[in-house]
Amino acid sequence: MDATSLVGRLADIGIALTSIRSLDRLLEHIVVQACDFASCDGGTVYIREGECLRLAVWRNAALARRSGRQAEVVREGRLLPISSRWIAGYVASEGQVLNLPDVYCLPPGSPFAFDPNFDRENDYHTRSMLCVPMNDATGDNVGALQLVNAMDRAGRVVAFPAAIEPLMRSLASQAAVAIRNAQLDEKLKAAYFDTILRLSVAAEYRDTDTSRHVRRVSLYAEAIALECGMTAEQAELVRFAAPMHDIGKLGVPDAILLKPGALTPAERQVMQEHTRIGYDILKDSDAEVIRASAEVALAHHERWDGRGYPSGLSGDAIPSLGRIVALADAFDCISSRRVYKEPKSVDESVGIIRSDSGSHFDPAGVEAFLRARGRIEAIHESLADDDGPVSPPTGGR
Amino acid sequence: MDATSLVGRLADIGIALTSIRSLDRLLEHIVVQACDFASCDGGTVYIREGECLRLAVWRNAALARRSGRQAEVVREGRLLPISSRWIAGYVASEGQVLNLPDVYCLPPGSPFAFDPNFDRENDYHTRSMLCVPMNDATGDNVGALQLVNAMDRAGRVVAFPAAIEPLMRSLASQAAVAIRNAQLDEKLKAAYFDTILRLSVAAEYRDTDTSRHVRRVSLYAEAIALECGMTAEQAELVRFAAPMHDIGKLGVPDAILLKPGALTPAERQVMQEHTRIGYDILKDSDAEVIRASAEVALAHHERWDGRGYPSGLSGDAIPSLGRIVALADAFDCISSRRVYKEPKSVDESVGIIRSDSGSHFDPAGVEAFLRARGRIEAIHESLADDDGPVSPPTGGR
Repeated sequence: MDATSLVGRLADIGIALTSIRSLDRLLEHIVVQACDFASCDGGTVYIREGECLRLAVWRNAALARRSGRQAEVVREGRLLPISSRWIAGYVASEGQVLNLPDVYCLPPGSPFAFDPNFDRENDYHTRSMLCVPMNDATGDNVGALQLVNAMDRAGRVVAFPAAIEPLMRSLASQAAVAIRNAQLDEKLKAAYFDTILRLSVAAEYRDTDTSRHVRRVSLYAEAIALECGMTAEQAELVRFAAPMHDIGKLGVPDAILLKPGALTPAERQVMQEHTRIGYDILKDSDAEVIRASAEVALAHHERWDGRGYPSGLSGDAIPSLGRIVALADAFDCISSRRVYKEPKSVDESVGIIRSDSGSHFDPAGVEAFLRARGRIEAIHESLADDDGPVSPPTGGR
Repeated sequence: MDATSLVGRLADIGIALTSIRSLDRLLEHIVVQACDFASCDGGTVYIREGECLRLAVWRNAALARRSGRQAEVVREGRLLPISSRWIAGYVASEGQVLNLPDVYCLPPGSPFAFDPNFDRENDYHTRSMLCVPMNDATGDNVGALQLVNAMDRAGRVVAFPAAIEPLMRSLASQAAVAIRNAQLDEKLKAAYFDTILRLSVAAEYRDTDTSRHVRRVSLYAEAIALECGMTAEQAELVRFAAPMHDIGKLGVPDAILLKPGALTPAERQVMQEHTRIGYDILKDSDAEVIRASAEVALAHHERWDGRGYPSGLSGDAIPSLGRIVALADAFDCISSRRVYKEPKSVDESVGIIRSDSGSHFDPAGVEAFLRARGRIEAIHESLADDDGPVSPPTGGR
């Protein structure tokens, strides 16, 4: 392949990289494309975190072949302090490319050493190595890309040709920009979700529910959504939309919302208005998440048999997000302590959900709930109310 | 410049483009880089919106030179239906590059025609044109990039060389990916801001304030922040953080929040707790926006002279975001109708703010407020309460 078409291929890789907005998928793609582009055996992506490099992902075709598998990308997570004493540490701190024909025979006086642990642990022999800094458009270092054992056409390990260095530098820069974008994206999404959670909790400030209730319902709903066959993206929408289900309680007067005893029928009717109030607050948004949350707010107290509120819808006429959040909310209510009741065990709570299939709940939703039980139990445990207060503090004034 | 270094330059442009996350700046950068890369007189970026192309930006060096100015990027906004009957419309719908040596002398049988209006209106003569589809990594069309009047070294208009077509196609793809990312980013940010507004309004559901109050305070605060010398990014943070200033009112009982008459000193003390409650709801977030909003919630009733609440801070000890939102909130309160008072005119309201400089308000903040007066008046008018209810509906139950 001549230089121009190599560079053209590089541009295509750059376009593909910058289209990926999930950090995990992006890192996989970087290591696969870089190994392919440089015709080498293995590669590692290090991501900078302050004064450390995180060994994010690696891939080695020879090791995979040996165990009869396709070369998979392995997720790692070790955090290594940046210093000139090891290869990627040197590259990240100095911003220099290192092209080493034989890592067991480093140039005399090299400040860095090769760590042979990977070779020992995996019965592998690293020889040639090309390590390139990933710098973004402003020159900030985002990490390092390390490639090992370049192969010639006959499959012999050779040194990386010098001509590939500027191309790999360019690929690494494109990777850096793509990583930075994906990181900013994840940060923005995390901030968004944090806001939704806090404000959903705030809406329950006058109620007895806790911030953990909001979080649990959100995660239960996502787990059920995935088992209903939704894509990861659709299930994420459910996770973002679910916390706001009770936002309409803001419109219920203290005298009813905080009444210690049973409600009169008239009071109960006012209380049930929280579904329509929530819908009014959230309806008509340009944002898909908020439109979905409006649907959830309105429909999460409908029942499969038509005996719910506010509209008495039944069966498939109830929006699917409403059916999913109804399950998540009910399970959390049953399995948590309330001022007026003790929590039921997970087994008992699951039993109640199961026995209400087809009456209160969508039978297909209950099936999905049962398939998601492992995940749901893990959420129940990790976000248990008894662990003490979490920030932001709640539980009324 | 040889082919390889041209392609290398292209990769650098791609890296620069994908680093820009603001759509406006990105479009400017695309048209400038493309004209520079192709050594031509002018360029236009069309962005696809459904079945139309929006003429987003254009730039023409010769026209600028003639009026003695630097070539500026001109923002447009006209929406043109996509069809094969005009050049960019053809390119966007067919996905083909058009390289036309002379637009006044099109190949016989061309389905498209050249629109000479721009030439007539600007006393310009378009001759050569290169129009390239902007397709993203999946091949979806995002728009078209149109370049006019390629120049040789002697400054004569020539045809675009065929060799530049694949390079411009690649540049256009990189531009397409960058535009798509910036659009997704703006969509996510808009959804985030919409959520903050709705939930801030929801928090005021029990109060008499309107959704417009929340929006106005947010925009006033951004305008003041800009005049305080903050960057656009910092001012955007203020805009996102400001709406939540009264979220703590959720923790104030109906009996006090909704009391028609004057509050007793004890009741006033409970009412003033809304600052600390808001802080409790919002504090300790990983997200910068929420940390900023916690600061605003806590500090927006402090006074420059130390006679505010909850902490009685004075002068620079009051966080700057708190001082800015205090101004924005006070101006909106004075200039709006409340159940207990008529609105004051803008002139009167500004006078009150000015006379409270150094007592209630930070004098430097008041100066910034006065400089921002034009913008503030425009916001006041465009979001007036008297225009009737806006979605989401508010104003108590």
